[in-house]
Amino acid sequence: MKPGVKKSLEAIVSPENFSDQLIDLVSYSSDATSRRHRPEAAVWVTDADQVADVLAFCNRERIPVTARGAGTSLAGLSVPVRGGLVMDLCRMNRIVDICIEDRVAVVQPGVVYADLEKALAPHGFFFPPDPASGSVATIGGNVATNAGGMKGAKYGVTKDYVLGLEVVLADGRKVKTGSRCMKSSSGFDLTRLFVGSEGLLGVITEIILKINPRPRHTGTVRAAFDSLASAGQAVSRIMRSGIIPSVLEIIDRNTLIAINQNTDLRLPEAAAILLAEADGFTQEETNAQLEQIIAIFKENHASEVRMAKGPEEAEALWLARKSAGGVLFRLNIALEVEDLAVPLSKVAEALEFISDLAEKYRLRIPTVGHAGDGNLHPGISYDPNDREEVNRVRMAAEELMTKVTELGGTLTGEHGIGLTKAPFMPLEHDDVSLEIMRGLKNYFDPNDILNPGKMGL
Amino acid sequence: MKPGVKKSLEAIVSPENFSDQLIDLVSYSSDATSRRHRPEAAVWVTDADQVADVLAFCNRERIPVTARGAGTSLAGLSVPVRGGLVMDLCRMNRIVDICIEDRVAVVQPGVVYADLEKALAPHGFFFPPDPASGSVATIGGNVATNAGGMKGAKYGVTKDYVLGLEVVLADGRKVKTGSRCMKSSSGFDLTRLFVGSEGLLGVITEIILKINPRPRHTGTVRAAFDSLASAGQAVSRIMRSGIIPSVLEIIDRNTLIAINQNTDLRLPEAAAILLAEADGFTQEETNAQLEQIIAIFKENHASEVRMAKGPEEAEALWLARKSAGGVLFRLNIALEVEDLAVPLSKVAEALEFISDLAEKYRLRIPTVGHAGDGNLHPGISYDPNDREEVNRVRMAAEELMTKVTELGGTLTGEHGIGLTKAPFMPLEHDDVSLEIMRGLKNYFDPNDILNPGKMGL
Repeated sequence: MKPGVKKSLEAIVSPENFSDQLIDLVSYSSDATSRRHRPEAAVWVTDADQVADVLAFCNRERIPVTARGAGTSLAGLSVPVRGGLVMDLCRMNRIVDICIEDRVAVVQPGVVYADLEKALAPHGFFFPPDPASGSVATIGGNVATNAGGMKGAKYGVTKDYVLGLEVVLADGRKVKTGSRCMKSSSGFDLTRLFVGSEGLLGVITEIILKINPRPRHTGTVRAAFDSLASAGQAVSRIMRSGIIPSVLEIIDRNTLIAINQNTDLRLPEAAAILLAEADGFTQEETNAQLEQIIAIFKENHASEVRMAKGPEEAEALWLARKSAGGVLFRLNIALEVEDLAVPLSKVAEALEFISDLAEKYRLRIPTVGHAGDGNLHPGISYDPNDREEVNRVRMAAEELMTKVTELGGTLTGEHGIGLTKAPFMPLEHDDVSLEIMRGLKNYFDPNDILNPGKMGL
Repeated sequence: MKPGVKKSLEAIVSPENFSDQLIDLVSYSSDATSRRHRPEAAVWVTDADQVADVLAFCNRERIPVTARGAGTSLAGLSVPVRGGLVMDLCRMNRIVDICIEDRVAVVQPGVVYADLEKALAPHGFFFPPDPASGSVATIGGNVATNAGGMKGAKYGVTKDYVLGLEVVLADGRKVKTGSRCMKSSSGFDLTRLFVGSEGLLGVITEIILKINPRPRHTGTVRAAFDSLASAGQAVSRIMRSGIIPSVLEIIDRNTLIAINQNTDLRLPEAAAILLAEADGFTQEETNAQLEQIIAIFKENHASEVRMAKGPEEAEALWLARKSAGGVLFRLNIALEVEDLAVPLSKVAEALEFISDLAEKYRLRIPTVGHAGDGNLHPGISYDPNDREEVNRVRMAAEELMTKVTELGGTLTGEHGIGLTKAPFMPLEHDDVSLEIMRGLKNYFDPNDILNPGKMGL
């Protein structure tokens, strides 16, 4: 990085908030994927004005800028693949306002999901989209990725809760979109265009979120299945039965074994288990839904059906599910966590395809997923030093994405495209779609400085 | 219209689906507003290929095209203000697929909301965003307007249910966005960009909708209030209480008088009544919520609180609410139906401001609204032949919109900008927002043929 550039950036953020030290650059070269590329410098910004000044400067100098939060991306969203500057937003971590009267929370992008949850809890409210990485992931990253979580089937995903944004554009101009209103049909929906745009169209500096009253009663049930097909069939039947469980998760045998090795939950090591949660304003509502779920489990040959005995056991089950990714990461030399969604009727077929794929390519592919919205996470385990195996992983991933799009599915339910899915964009999106996306990128960021090299655009 | 143009359009849609007869042109010169402008011709299209051919031709010839459904817009969205061609999509009224397994319905844009409801009912499913005009309004129009309805507070609005679209662009190219998946984070969210774009960015030719299981139990309660402030306060308290009613409507005295004149419901002619509905999977859930609502009504000095005696009485109340607009239209020489939303905490203040405004400008402004999401519909009644009164209406509308944006509100909760709100766009949106919207319009429609002259762009 040229000395003049360093000086200018230091003048904007102050010297202590700028770094070109190797240790920082190595830290910022990756995220939760195995992809890496070293940036030339990093800045820690503390307010929207600094973001604006940094972007205006980098736009003039044609320096790539990759904004990042906690770096928990599983698709390479925060890897600065064209070098340049990493802009860390984690210090913009102020909860600006919690206004229960308006049913909104206003946060800076660096606020960690769990911290917002903690702040909302005393009010009896919550922010439903709960990524498994919620204890560290930032809301800004969730918005940029349109993150999902376990409660998607009933409560939707991040985009369903973002009412308004403050965004800094590539040239440093600030724009406010949306409002604190629950509804609006005023002009083009710029808010939604920025949500899920992976830092390619602007840098988000403030977020207005709709929040929900927390259900007063929840109950959890689990069931084991001897075949993936039966588990998939049970999911389909539940989703057609007239209720929407607040959570409906699937965990396959490979993952169950891994969880059992790392916890004392002693889950049945069946072909798959389903974990379901129902919630309501009354205990009766919760129970009635759980009874229906249990009946469907039994009709679909569940070999073991068990209600969680109390909140502690339920909490332990959800913790096990949420930590499944981490457990698998630790147990494997390398793990490529896939993220796909299919129409609900195709969940069983997708699960069986993944199982066959593992056999075909001699790979272990433990799979978990948000079954209630057709969102699956196969994790392909491999040894990165075994070139032949790496090649099999590559072929399996490509075959999987091809199949997913043939099933009418999507390349990513909640992790985004980033680097890992970029080559597959034409499998899902037609030429005109891709051309429009490129046109939008070019309109918002003509010099291609914002997180360049991502999304296959 | 030049003879060559007529011939070319007839060749695309067939001569019987083209008209330049005065009676048709007059019909197509307006919508549910008092705005009018006569088009030069109209076509009835029957499939996406025809839409594509018509647009490609009109784009080459620089002929404005205003796509329309049932023409129920209350903001002038379907008035062909620059003349040219009206493209009527009502004959594209096929329900392409209802797939309960996938939790989706696929429809052409001309499908009437009520027809979709009828088709979904036997499956125990419904499409929640229910505009008051649902018995005639088309789904295509609902999507183009991001229509709301009475169930917004709990179930959201149209944009929350559109999973994917087929859209024909200004130059005739077709594009598919989204999928039948419940979730996706794949590329920029083009679906959401088209939703609510009022026909300015493309013409929607197919829609994939998420549908919901219909709640098994509902209950309705109404309460009368002696002051708007108390009613507003009750709304705020309910929305903070930990429940979300499936409906929470406000009807003011002027509207109550009008409803009583036209029905035998004998509603109390108080300052305002609130109508609330709660729903659930069990009767207990519904009742518990209603009890809480009733308690809050009473704490806020409701002068009369009554549960609907059964589904018939509840149905009558909702019908009265839904027909309020029609009743007011019939009773008044002219009615300007406003549509605004404010943050929930400002509902009481907005209601009192409207009441004061009526007094100040010596106007009758009956007001109804979806109070649970802060969305109010003051209807300004006037005599269009009284120029002095028309002038007072104009001044009152402008003062109202100024106040709304000062309260952090939005110009439109669910009707769109169209013609009536176009002059007020700068009150809500900053210069950069407006520039981005103009840039998007120009990118998608460089010759400005798609519903030109709308949205203040």
